[in-house]
Amino acid sequence: MEKEISTAVIRRLPRYYRYLGSLMDNGITRISSRDLSRRMGLTASQIRQDLNNFGAFGQQGYGYNVEKLYYEIRKILGLDKTYNMIIIGAGNIGQALLNYINYQRRGYNFVGVFDKNPKLIGLNIRGTVIRDIDTLENFLDNTKVDIAVLTLPGNDAEEVIKIIIDKGVRGIWNFSHMTIKTPPGVVMENVHLTDSLMTLSYKLKEESKE
Amino acid sequence: MEKEISTAVIRRLPRYYRYLGSLMDNGITRISSRDLSRRMGLTASQIRQDLNNFGAFGQQGYGYNVEKLYYEIRKILGLDKTYNMIIIGAGNIGQALLNYINYQRRGYNFVGVFDKNPKLIGLNIRGTVIRDIDTLENFLDNTKVDIAVLTLPGNDAEEVIKIIIDKGVRGIWNFSHMTIKTPPGVVMENVHLTDSLMTLSYKLKEESKE
Repeated sequence: MEKEISTAVIRRLPRYYRYLGSLMDNGITRISSRDLSRRMGLTASQIRQDLNNFGAFGQQGYGYNVEKLYYEIRKILGLDKTYNMIIIGAGNIGQALLNYINYQRRGYNFVGVFDKNPKLIGLNIRGTVIRDIDTLENFLDNTKVDIAVLTLPGNDAEEVIKIIIDKGVRGIWNFSHMTIKTPPGVVMENVHLTDSLMTLSYKLKEESKE
Repeated sequence: MEKEISTAVIRRLPRYYRYLGSLMDNGITRISSRDLSRRMGLTASQIRQDLNNFGAFGQQGYGYNVEKLYYEIRKILGLDKTYNMIIIGAGNIGQALLNYINYQRRGYNFVGVFDKNPKLIGLNIRGTVIRDIDTLENFLDNTKVDIAVLTLPGNDAEEVIKIIIDKGVRGIWNFSHMTIKTPPGVVMENVHLTDSLMTLSYKLKEESKE
């Protein structure tokens, strides 16, 4: 039934998902593509095209069923599953991600946080004790981990990536500067904060030239 | 002299910049495109093309002058300038960004942090006192701010974006869920953490189907 969906559409789905979630929170049960478009900064025809991709057709004079669409997108994004997650690198960004959202609500279940810094090991961050990075391999032998969040320096990341892939972790949410070609079956999503800030600086500089 | 550089190249420049910086830290003065490519996961010809864009030609048998290239890219990215920066939203991510790196070193100068939460207002985060969001307009009347970092909930971001643009802030580093079309002269760089994680979940789900 499910057909191939383009990466561009997939990248927009979280936005639909978030927005539909907030509509549900506000008790709204249906929405037209025009209202969606006004809110999301996309054209109505773009929205219709995107949603048609997975067989969600709005009805003339009715629009989309918010709840149905929400759960459909949730399923497509794989958010109806639960993911065991570890954080490697308990510095500022690592700790912030641990606290950021109640990920459990979305099916992300933190099962361990690791660091090599003796000052951090043993600290309790909102109920999660920071473990010694040296215990990572052993931990992975005993615990199924779906996603590893890498919030450690690039130099350290290279070795860690080898270990986690070797131990069967298949999802990597990478905040480190290390970019590698992942082997088949392993997926990686990069968030390069400093690169993003440098890109902003570049755009600012370009704007001020005009 | 400077010609139009494509967005794709610009997005790779921070990686070159970071890598060249680490070479300099290690006392390496020159590098071949082949060594660069091995390290960066790009082909040597891609690297030559990228760098040719701004007139940095490697020399046969010598390669690139690391320091010269570093400072050239620095200039192109606008990193030779200093940017006054504020953070709006002093929650986990806001505080982590404040601490993350010594941004000053790169020309990012934090001049203020704002929040609406009375429990946070007045707290001192590494030498920066969190201010009341209600004082933001007045602050912007008196202080030149180049970049505002938005680390507050999407619902609150809409009004804040209006205020900061109205007060002349031209760069927005946006971590909130609010995405808007910025007016001419204002540039925005989005980092959508939850969207990135959802995309990772989707890829994981797709991989496990195969």
